[in-house]
Amino acid sequence: MRVGVLTGGGDCPGLNAVIRAVVRKGIKDYGYEFVGFRDGWRGPLEGDTMPLDISAVRGILPRGGTILGSSRTNLMKIDGGVERVKDNLAGLGVDALVAIGGEDTLGVARQLFDRDVKVVGVPKTIDNDLNATDYTFGFDTAVNIATEAIDRLHTTAESHHRALIVEVMGRHAGWIALHSGMAAGANVILIPERPFDIGEVVAHVESRFKTNYAPIIVVAEGAHPKDGQMELSTGEKDSFGHVRLGGIGQRLAEEIESRTGKEARSVVLGHVQRGGTPSAFDRVLATRLGSNAIAAVNDKEFGKMVALQGTEIVRVDLAEATETLKTVPTERYEEAEVFFG
Amino acid sequence: MRVGVLTGGGDCPGLNAVIRAVVRKGIKDYGYEFVGFRDGWRGPLEGDTMPLDISAVRGILPRGGTILGSSRTNLMKIDGGVERVKDNLAGLGVDALVAIGGEDTLGVARQLFDRDVKVVGVPKTIDNDLNATDYTFGFDTAVNIATEAIDRLHTTAESHHRALIVEVMGRHAGWIALHSGMAAGANVILIPERPFDIGEVVAHVESRFKTNYAPIIVVAEGAHPKDGQMELSTGEKDSFGHVRLGGIGQRLAEEIESRTGKEARSVVLGHVQRGGTPSAFDRVLATRLGSNAIAAVNDKEFGKMVALQGTEIVRVDLAEATETLKTVPTERYEEAEVFFG
Amino acid sequence: MRVGVLTGGGDCPGLNAVIRAVVRKGIKDYGYEFVGFRDGWRGPLEGDTMPLDISAVRGILPRGGTILGSSRTNLMKIDGGVERVKDNLAGLGVDALVAIGGEDTLGVARQLFDRDVKVVGVPKTIDNDLNATDYTFGFDTAVNIATEAIDRLHTTAESHHRALIVEVMGRHAGWIALHSGMAAGANVILIPERPFDIGEVVAHVESRFKTNYAPIIVVAEGAHPKDGQMELSTGEKDSFGHVRLGGIGQRLAEEIESRTGKEARSVVLGHVQRGGTPSAFDRVLATRLGSNAIAAVNDKEFGKMVALQGTEIVRVDLAEATETLKTVPTERYEEAEVFFG
Amino acid sequence: MRVGVLTGGGDCPGLNAVIRAVVRKGIKDYGYEFVGFRDGWRGPLEGDTMPLDISAVRGILPRGGTILGSSRTNLMKIDGGVERVKDNLAGLGVDALVAIGGEDTLGVARQLFDRDVKVVGVPKTIDNDLNATDYTFGFDTAVNIATEAIDRLHTTAESHHRALIVEVMGRHAGWIALHSGMAAGANVILIPERPFDIGEVVAHVESRFKTNYAPIIVVAEGAHPKDGQMELSTGEKDSFGHVRLGGIGQRLAEEIESRTGKEARSVVLGHVQRGGTPSAFDRVLATRLGSNAIAAVNDKEFGKMVALQGTEIVRVDLAEATETLKTVPTERYEEAEVFFG
Repeated sequence: MRVGVLTGGGDCPGLNAVIRAVVRKGIKDYGYEFVGFRDGWRGPLEGDTMPLDISAVRGILPRGGTILGSSRTNLMKIDGGVERVKDNLAGLGVDALVAIGGEDTLGVARQLFDRDVKVVGVPKTIDNDLNATDYTFGFDTAVNIATEAIDRLHTTAESHHRALIVEVMGRHAGWIALHSGMAAGANVILIPERPFDIGEVVAHVESRFKTNYAPIIVVAEGAHPKDGQMELSTGEKDSFGHVRLGGIGQRLAEEIESRTGKEARSVVLGHVQRGGTPSAFDRVLATRLGSNAIAAVNDKEFGKMVALQGTEIVRVDLAEATETLKTVPTERYEEAEVFFG
Repeated sequence: MRVGVLTGGGDCPGLNAVIRAVVRKGIKDYGYEFVGFRDGWRGPLEGDTMPLDISAVRGILPRGGTILGSSRTNLMKIDGGVERVKDNLAGLGVDALVAIGGEDTLGVARQLFDRDVKVVGVPKTIDNDLNATDYTFGFDTAVNIATEAIDRLHTTAESHHRALIVEVMGRHAGWIALHSGMAAGANVILIPERPFDIGEVVAHVESRFKTNYAPIIVVAEGAHPKDGQMELSTGEKDSFGHVRLGGIGQRLAEEIESRTGKEARSVVLGHVQRGGTPSAFDRVLATRLGSNAIAAVNDKEFGKMVALQGTEIVRVDLAEATETLKTVPTERYEEAEVFFG
Repeated sequence: MRVGVLTGGGDCPGLNAVIRAVVRKGIKDYGYEFVGFRDGWRGPLEGDTMPLDISAVRGILPRGGTILGSSRTNLMKIDGGVERVKDNLAGLGVDALVAIGGEDTLGVARQLFDRDVKVVGVPKTIDNDLNATDYTFGFDTAVNIATEAIDRLHTTAESHHRALIVEVMGRHAGWIALHSGMAAGANVILIPERPFDIGEVVAHVESRFKTNYAPIIVVAEGAHPKDGQMELSTGEKDSFGHVRLGGIGQRLAEEIESRTGKEARSVVLGHVQRGGTPSAFDRVLATRLGSNAIAAVNDKEFGKMVALQGTEIVRVDLAEATETLKTVPTERYEEAEVFFG
Repeated sequence: MRVGVLTGGGDCPGLNAVIRAVVRKGIKDYGYEFVGFRDGWRGPLEGDTMPLDISAVRGILPRGGTILGSSRTNLMKIDGGVERVKDNLAGLGVDALVAIGGEDTLGVARQLFDRDVKVVGVPKTIDNDLNATDYTFGFDTAVNIATEAIDRLHTTAESHHRALIVEVMGRHAGWIALHSGMAAGANVILIPERPFDIGEVVAHVESRFKTNYAPIIVVAEGAHPKDGQMELSTGEKDSFGHVRLGGIGQRLAEEIESRTGKEARSVVLGHVQRGGTPSAFDRVLATRLGSNAIAAVNDKEFGKMVALQGTEIVRVDLAEATETLKTVPTERYEEAEVFFG
């Protein structure tokens, strides 16, 4: 049995831990051979491979990034892409595929499975917004990094009687903001799922200034005010016409300064959240997911994604996993809201 | 409503986060008053209290330890202890109790509940060996600390062609060893649940020496060899007659040196694992448990312990929670075993 | 003897360690009393004080920020400011002052000394750009934080075949960029002292892309291109007309993308660099500086600043210390340049 | 020009950073070729080499350990060792040697130089006890690790009203104990240079217990009591007859328990202090030392050791560097003593 492995989408701590687990268990328990595909779907599309044996995965468990490289190549947008992948897999003698990635990568995996490719998916998103799994690896690391940064900002805010706005990742779901905000004692947490009222935010800020402590606002990059409340300046786009990372944090700082008369500064954590060595939680989770994925291959359970439910690794349909986004439920936000202000 | 709060047993990162959540939510949502009892059950036994209001819990979320202090005072071994506690609670006007602690503390809580004290328990053990909850707070922090230490030891082992034995906490359950060992790529993990065969351990060590990497063995303090295999020297007791922390790690190092002829050194992580600032995971978990515990008081659901199941905080009977120890199941150990050697 | 203490200017890890050392040694060795002035020069100007005894400084050694608060109040710009300060010191019975701060704070200290105020200065700047001292406390912490962030970004850059630009503090001097860039293996380091040639930067980026590694550029916020090379868009100002933090990093990313056709992203570390717990180096340095400052008061050596030279704490004239900025010398930059590309 | 490189003695964070700097600058600036010798002096003795080019040193800057391996092989104790080394160097066409190591390694380097081997030394010791250099790389990392551990232990000590004894490295010099103890606010610091009075130690412990804080004692492994004060049990030797790491810490804990009646526990940090990624300070220092060492080769300044003096890298005679041990001077200890108790 020859098994191909690829990693797609954005960087995420734990990718290498998954690859190592797939390969080590696959060789030791099942005697498989492995083929590494480079840069996500680009690899099987172009037949770009690298050797993937025990020595290739030695020492990679604690390392961030992915030895296989990644890309956002979307197979479905390429004419004849699926056929070329099937031809390349056949040509390379690859019997099955382990695809590690987020919504996009797994969406492609699912469509390949519908066209008879033997594929197992491993969920990956820093944002923790994939359905059917309690947590995705990388998320815990991102939350730890954000929490440490906010811990540091507390003392600066207090010494200077300043409001600090920390913008964290999360375009569509506020999980990183929710967890890092709760962990670091943020005074307000703003998430995409819940358009905010700028007046309420300012009220929290002002009530906080009355203590000896200073306000810290954690805001997901995708958070936004209720309709019409705060103009999001069109000047916020970069030279490519994309909305600039850091937009909402900076706008909030300006708005809070002008409404409270106190200094406010924003910090955008950016890519630091998704690189580097994974937390212990993420290494264990990634290892278990990888082990179970290759076991699924051995069990011939294709078209599945491995997932964490409670303390167990289970297998769910790729279809189910990629249907809807897992957003922050109201009760989880309300639980955090108790500590605002 | 006046609610007493106490923390019992060994130190554990997240205790202050629980206390803060109980107090902040209790005051904000329910208008409760709080009384802090000092040093576990010694507090209510001797009527030793401290003020516990919003200002007392400001800034404590990220801090290790417990502002209430702790002790191992066992109420049940003190004649008339229960009556004295009931009298003191009545005298202080305390209507209900939130008891934060491990098996012992919650065992006492359960017996007090049987004698009509209104009590809610919050599970606490670095060892993660309490039944009915997926994880206990403090465990994730301990695993991260152990993992970072093992990461550091890898390079030393390799540069010196040496075996390193890392002894971590876990007298009765091997959770910390299992998780930190998986996370840090240990070559062998030894846990109390599974008496080890010294010949197998040595075989793993020798096979590892044949690569460019060096063997790291993670051993829980309560791990032990199969009957008669390795004499645990009686010289290992301290001046008080207690078995010395570090015993098994040191013995393994000696045994491996004498059997392989290679250098072996042991490191005992000790109390470093249970102090200091909690990880983000533990802060979120501790906060959620604290919030739910005071909500249980408000719901008049006494005799319960709050617990994590999946991503939800639930309530279980104190009786159920304290009946049996949660040890590492065979399948979890086998999952890790794939990576040995 | 009653001694006043104040902290001025931006936040800097180690401020509390200085305050603690001044107070503990002052009380234990000399029997002094202390008065804390709040928020830099605003404190003595307005007579705003706080108690500063042994219990006030307990536990503050590892904490970021300053328990005294800070501000940028510039005494010299306030009519009659110096007289009001002298009156307030007399009224409060304050015999001498320990002023902890950067160029501005120490400049005021020097002018007060010229008008017969007994003052000793302690140098503080995250940027390490104060003359007459080898290092300032806070700098080592900032460099460690930046280095850890860049370590994390390496894996992301590599996995995505992307250039990453990391903007660090340093308006007038490139010390943080130089040290964190050297420590983290940056491919290019850009500092204010040395206007850069954008063509050379792009050449380094392109040569790096030919390896399996990806380019990381560390740029001090005050770095700038050689005349006319790269337009720094006027749109980079915030709503208050200030140049926005992050300007140069973002501009470089755009320029590199358009010149190389490869993705480039910028990360602005911002205030995270100046908050939180100090590194061990900074705690030791801050403690030694504080101890020596109060010893200088006892020796009646006023008008001096304490400084690190080699491994010794020495005393230099405030005048000497604040005359010129300590910038990165050419040979230090050339030493780093060897590792570019 | 072909240059050999070797690393000798105990592991130390920063070794790889030195190797990388030597090789990269040597190739880029001087066009040298390099030969890596494995495991310290064993490499040239046995002619055991590995390739050492640009690709061999890519990515090693942040990694602990040494890619060249290390050993304690002492050339001077081997009959004809020096001649064999000279023959091997000639046979391999190696013109000069960069030897990175501590007292022993540099002592051998010096004797080789006396016998016409062209050698430049780079000082390496975690213990910071080499003369003629302000700091050695690895020391700052060790102090940071010890400081973080002591930070964590503070909260445990306080929650349990316990004394904690932390044993750190330092057989002959107390630098790690002095710096980590000052940085972490230890209540007592015990170093080899200064035999301690057990009565004074106990007095500090008891005075500390009267506050709300708990005593932390930092003790270097080579510290010892004044004559006859505390029996150091002969049972402390391991199965090889060596004094066991952890001896003095454990003995102090027992003595303090029996004299104060309070609980005391010891933690031995051990090898964790010398492994893993170097701090930013150590990476910069190691890089600068490596760069300067290969420049010394190019300048034909053999028989020298590179060293840090103030902020400059200088060259001193190997003889001078290895003559005496740099111990903690009385005034540095007294500076720390102010904060005891």
